[in-house]
Amino acid sequence: MDHVTSSVPFGDFRVALNIVRSEFSSVLGLPSEDVPIEIHGLSSPSEPRAGTLLFTMSSPDEALLRRLEGIGACVAIIPEDCGKAIAALGHIALESAWPKYAFAKLVRALVPLAVERGRVSGSYSPLAAVGEGAIIGAGTTIEEFVSVASGSRMGEDCYLMRGSSVGPRVHLGRGCVLKENAVVGDLGFGFGLAAGRPHTRIPQLAGVEVGDDVEIGACTTIGAGTLVPTRIETGTKISNHVHVAHNCSIGTNTIIACGVNVSGSVTIGKRCWIAPGATLRNKISIGDGAAVGLGAVVVKDVSPGATVAGVPARVFDKPGPWYESETGTP
Amino acid sequence: MDHVTSSVPFGDFRVALNIVRSEFSSVLGLPSEDVPIEIHGLSSPSEPRAGTLLFTMSSPDEALLRRLEGIGACVAIIPEDCGKAIAALGHIALESAWPKYAFAKLVRALVPLAVERGRVSGSYSPLAAVGEGAIIGAGTTIEEFVSVASGSRMGEDCYLMRGSSVGPRVHLGRGCVLKENAVVGDLGFGFGLAAGRPHTRIPQLAGVEVGDDVEIGACTTIGAGTLVPTRIETGTKISNHVHVAHNCSIGTNTIIACGVNVSGSVTIGKRCWIAPGATLRNKISIGDGAAVGLGAVVVKDVSPGATVAGVPARVFDKPGPWYESETGTP
Amino acid sequence: MDHVTSSVPFGDFRVALNIVRSEFSSVLGLPSEDVPIEIHGLSSPSEPRAGTLLFTMSSPDEALLRRLEGIGACVAIIPEDCGKAIAALGHIALESAWPKYAFAKLVRALVPLAVERGRVSGSYSPLAAVGEGAIIGAGTTIEEFVSVASGSRMGEDCYLMRGSSVGPRVHLGRGCVLKENAVVGDLGFGFGLAAGRPHTRIPQLAGVEVGDDVEIGACTTIGAGTLVPTRIETGTKISNHVHVAHNCSIGTNTIIACGVNVSGSVTIGKRCWIAPGATLRNKISIGDGAAVGLGAVVVKDVSPGATVAGVPARVFDKPGPWYESETGTP
Repeated sequence: MDHVTSSVPFGDFRVALNIVRSEFSSVLGLPSEDVPIEIHGLSSPSEPRAGTLLFTMSSPDEALLRRLEGIGACVAIIPEDCGKAIAALGHIALESAWPKYAFAKLVRALVPLAVERGRVSGSYSPLAAVGEGAIIGAGTTIEEFVSVASGSRMGEDCYLMRGSSVGPRVHLGRGCVLKENAVVGDLGFGFGLAAGRPHTRIPQLAGVEVGDDVEIGACTTIGAGTLVPTRIETGTKISNHVHVAHNCSIGTNTIIACGVNVSGSVTIGKRCWIAPGATLRNKISIGDGAAVGLGAVVVKDVSPGATVAGVPARVFDKPGPWYESETGTP
Repeated sequence: MDHVTSSVPFGDFRVALNIVRSEFSSVLGLPSEDVPIEIHGLSSPSEPRAGTLLFTMSSPDEALLRRLEGIGACVAIIPEDCGKAIAALGHIALESAWPKYAFAKLVRALVPLAVERGRVSGSYSPLAAVGEGAIIGAGTTIEEFVSVASGSRMGEDCYLMRGSSVGPRVHLGRGCVLKENAVVGDLGFGFGLAAGRPHTRIPQLAGVEVGDDVEIGACTTIGAGTLVPTRIETGTKISNHVHVAHNCSIGTNTIIACGVNVSGSVTIGKRCWIAPGATLRNKISIGDGAAVGLGAVVVKDVSPGATVAGVPARVFDKPGPWYESETGTP
Repeated sequence: MDHVTSSVPFGDFRVALNIVRSEFSSVLGLPSEDVPIEIHGLSSPSEPRAGTLLFTMSSPDEALLRRLEGIGACVAIIPEDCGKAIAALGHIALESAWPKYAFAKLVRALVPLAVERGRVSGSYSPLAAVGEGAIIGAGTTIEEFVSVASGSRMGEDCYLMRGSSVGPRVHLGRGCVLKENAVVGDLGFGFGLAAGRPHTRIPQLAGVEVGDDVEIGACTTIGAGTLVPTRIETGTKISNHVHVAHNCSIGTNTIIACGVNVSGSVTIGKRCWIAPGATLRNKISIGDGAAVGLGAVVVKDVSPGATVAGVPARVFDKPGPWYESETGTP
């Protein structure tokens, strides 16, 4: 048997699924007859443990090989063309062009979100408040202290964690995740001002349109639009403590890290990376594939593919220390 | 009939109320006998739609007039002395010195907050937790998962959105709004330190005094005072993810945008504008009418009327790109 | 009787406890026979009131002595060797090397946390959601809308305020405090990326390990670890709106102020001070006793004892205006 499994990209994990058991065995009824080793957890390349799954983004160096030499068999997800040395030590080597991605896919397949949360998939807590007429797709899980407003709608297999809320006129696609205390569709923060008169809030009646597989972080807020919906496209992931204000539009597969302030009517393209603590001025546009650095204060448009950083943010000729590669988030 | 209605300031909206129906008709029993057109929604000057209400802050240019030419009648709120060209196209032109303000007032009159939230005004959720002896003014609406502590007090017509909380020794005036998960009266973050000993929290027993018509944003926290109450005066509006620490004092009609950190014992004057992501050092003072720029880190006092920006924040001679005018928030 | 009580450090407060009554008398059954004065509240040195407890960090100046001269007896906690002038005015002077710390200890002893919150110590709200098998130490108080996950564990005398949540695989020591809406053990924000494929979340299965007497602020989130637990050591205090990402490790007695973004895999030493609004790049290390300035964006390691500030953060030769001394937080 050849311990090197060349599957680039990492394929359907058939091989890996066949070899994994133990702590995950209650989740998966895995056959074990053709299993060379059992996996009973995850470990790190800096401290690999026998019988675990691990991954590394770089070609295995001498130090890693030495650490792997002294222990029982494990399964390592490694870059392409790096499998032989590890397999020679008796381990299973799974080659991938994107080892971190492959690791994520494999562990997620073994441990669905509901299991990670210690819940039952598709269950509704009796301590949730679901408004009359709300449309909730099949397979959706709703934890306690969740609010789902009348007039909202969501697709299949969404997951609403404890304390999150879906406001009126909010539409979520399928597979969306709202983390703890996330607020989608808060009523914006736009006021009409007039000299000597009380500030008067502008009602935000256009709601929020969210695509599929969007994640909204814990204590993150997404404001409802005024005249057109605030939009978050499919595959975009937003971390904790982010505010996306009214009338924003965010493209597909963008990643917004923690503590980012996105002011009103900002447009962000697809596959962008907005680093922790950045603040974006209202009405600016961030082009496709652009990266905004840690703590940057962005006051004007950013071109597609550009990297900006600083206060106020300026363009870096080439990706600087702020840049995160396509291979994974920190 | 003259389609130009000159009412500066925008008056009591009598004319407008008389012409609005359709989606709002369940809210308002509007007479229709003298109605020249019906309003069935809102639209934007960049995409005006027949039968809607819209506003513009600038004098209508050729492009806007062209867009308005091709469509059925609508109602436009526009700057003073700009009505004739629009009225000539068969639309209703409502002139105002502050069109955005007039728009806000009108839409708010048509759509009260409870309707915007899809709730019944004055209702209490059975899933709220109201402490014994809390005093709650008539007409107040309390959504689910709200906590109102014993020993707190609030005026008439307040609105507490889902998950918000009013701590002990907190007093709210009338018409205050707490958005989702807002926390008013958290127990501060002051510690006594001594070499080699555990940090010891200082109890914050002086609570929070809030004026009338104050809005506290989603996931925003207001710390209780130590010896004197933390104060937020009438008409001030605070966005999401803001922290106002213990012992702060904020004047009337100030606007604090999202993600602002106001450290302990800071004084902010009236009609100030604190832009998103700003951080204010403890014990400093921001004068009346001052503006703090996007992401600014303010480490010393700011004079009345000054505009500061940057890290650390410096004064701009004249309002720079950070400045937001009196005509409205972004 | 000598009105100067020299007890440095401030000892067990026996003297002080003997003299305090009034608003606190329902909490403590204090003997009153040898009480020279009664304390019925707290006041500030800038406005001292008769019959109150106050503290000052500096040697009493003429102005303070003048203010103290005109009023009835109070109890003042003051720096060492500063008691005689105050005692000569008929007040009780309690000397301490750390007056703010002594004040905190004394007021906390008089007003336990549950009393400050207006609750009953050790009570569980029927509106909380405690998962099967969660282990909760004796004396723990659980307010309404709190979630405690199956598979979590906490020590004695913890206090979980309204809306806070303890996720799966989270272990808290004794005496920990979670403020309103705090989230401990959110599922991190790490994704595997691959060109042209949907981002895939990496499950975060290693939980959070928290020491004793740790405070987690309102709307603060602590991400669960991927392969090893996220760690927060004994005595560390974290304010509101902070995000501590997955795989971080924070030493003992560190203070993290409001609105701080701690990216993934950051190490922070013991007795550090991280000022409001700071953002820390992933994987960096902050040495023991280091201070990070207001709004600083820290992109590389900080040496033990260093003070850094700015964007990007640079070292200050000596503690600058950012520095907070060991004597107390703002």
